[in-house]
Amino acid sequence: MSSTSPKASAFDSRVPAYLQRLERTTDAVLPPASTDPARLHEAIRYACEGGKHLRALMVYAAGETLGVTPEQLDAAACSVELIHAYSLVHDDLPGMDNDDLRRGRPTVHKAYDEATAILVGDTLQTSAFEVLATSDALDDAQKVQMIRALAHASGSLGMVGGQAVDMASENLTLTLPQLESLHARKTGALILVTCQLAAIAANATEATRKGLEHYGRCIGLAFQIQDDVLDQIADTATLGKTAGKDLAQHKSTFPSLLGLEQAQQRAHALFDEARNAARGIAGHAEPLLWLADHIQQRDH
Amino acid sequence: MSSTSPKASAFDSRVPAYLQRLERTTDAVLPPASTDPARLHEAIRYACEGGKHLRALMVYAAGETLGVTPEQLDAAACSVELIHAYSLVHDDLPGMDNDDLRRGRPTVHKAYDEATAILVGDTLQTSAFEVLATSDALDDAQKVQMIRALAHASGSLGMVGGQAVDMASENLTLTLPQLESLHARKTGALILVTCQLAAIAANATEATRKGLEHYGRCIGLAFQIQDDVLDQIADTATLGKTAGKDLAQHKSTFPSLLGLEQAQQRAHALFDEARNAARGIAGHAEPLLWLADHIQQRDH
Repeated sequence: MSSTSPKASAFDSRVPAYLQRLERTTDAVLPPASTDPARLHEAIRYACEGGKHLRALMVYAAGETLGVTPEQLDAAACSVELIHAYSLVHDDLPGMDNDDLRRGRPTVHKAYDEATAILVGDTLQTSAFEVLATSDALDDAQKVQMIRALAHASGSLGMVGGQAVDMASENLTLTLPQLESLHARKTGALILVTCQLAAIAANATEATRKGLEHYGRCIGLAFQIQDDVLDQIADTATLGKTAGKDLAQHKSTFPSLLGLEQAQQRAHALFDEARNAARGIAGHAEPLLWLADHIQQRDH
Repeated sequence: MSSTSPKASAFDSRVPAYLQRLERTTDAVLPPASTDPARLHEAIRYACEGGKHLRALMVYAAGETLGVTPEQLDAAACSVELIHAYSLVHDDLPGMDNDDLRRGRPTVHKAYDEATAILVGDTLQTSAFEVLATSDALDDAQKVQMIRALAHASGSLGMVGGQAVDMASENLTLTLPQLESLHARKTGALILVTCQLAAIAANATEATRKGLEHYGRCIGLAFQIQDDVLDQIADTATLGKTAGKDLAQHKSTFPSLLGLEQAQQRAHALFDEARNAARGIAGHAEPLLWLADHIQQRDH
């Protein structure tokens, strides 16, 4: 880790505990793998294994910055990971990106079958809303606000809309604003909502929420640029998913529009802007600074 | 319509107004067809067109029985229809039932493409939870209870689980209890939840809720037996979907296990039991009696 903050290791030391909380919350909302129909429930759990859980960590980091207890963040952290997991299962389907490899293992439709993968994605989405609605640590007003925010981020004006635009854009050369708009929806919306959920858990002021949202938007875009860069320069073993896919699918990417070096510079500037936004939030910014560093340094 | 009740025409006369309310609520929660990405939004609306909207009518009928205003039922009625619509779009996919015809028109993946159909189903599910979370006519506690009930009914212990069992049961001969358990989940859970949502909107007593649930369970099972019967005896033009599918897919059905005549008798007895349950509810049972008659007499 770099040392942009003297307390750079503080959030780091709590990450394992947060990941354990995420695992426990996910385990509690999903029926046991032996529950009838067992093959479906086994596949649901398979789809949730692995992954870096950056979105959950963003919920915990943003919440910690605002002084929220972990209990009040568990459902939110779990819900974004469930939406993320569902989107990966469906994006990998033969009728979509048709991918065999995810998180270094066979995709759900490869490990099971296509019908099961469709149903796994469907029920992971259901569980995301269920975990918010059944939290013991949030009041009803917070639950409703979180469900609205998550639905907006993941629906046709957010993540799913971005995926639709992405598929329609194969073999087209997009402009930079078009590419940014696509990714603000496809990956950005779900990253942004982690900050919004934390703000709801904190009953934050509008100013605080806006500051957090600016952080979230910068991280979301930087994350995607970095993803495009990694797709081009990393190998499949490191990524845990098929490398070089963008080129194979003739997709516009930040490196293809800006050149590799300028894309990397743009991501760098966005991470800096995110850190500036984090420092401007009334709270203890260290978790958000750590997360910006952590994401910036990932190699997959 | 039969005249099991002297007021048998009263709910009937309000059905067009209820269907208009459903259309308005659905129209408001879905982005306009011209919204970017337009192809996706067009396909989402295509998937919601047509259909008998029996589930929405059950919400309105059960709510009317308990004295709930239509405003307090709109979101619930819309949410079950959105879940139903999403499930049809995904069930029809090539990786699932692979069907070309639905509601007398090409299925979504035929009219558009497979990727679009996956995303349409995904976002219809999202919209179902969104419409409950954004209702102006419910308090937050009711919204949360409804979202929990809908998630339970549509998830892996309900509708999606039933679909998984159904697909796993092709070419198997089920026992009658196994077949009933399958359909209690696949179609029954979403019919049952219409009664539960109405009970939540009414802040009903436990006794009332249980009475309504008994009505809902009887209707749900009767509806499915009737579906199996119609699949065997009706033609594709009348059904608006492919007839004779159960036989072609070697599925156990109520007629295949009980014989056609006994299956029809069992449905008849269940409709009678539903009417008895309706008369036992503290309220104005006529809407529920009308609905039982209406469903019993359908030919598609």
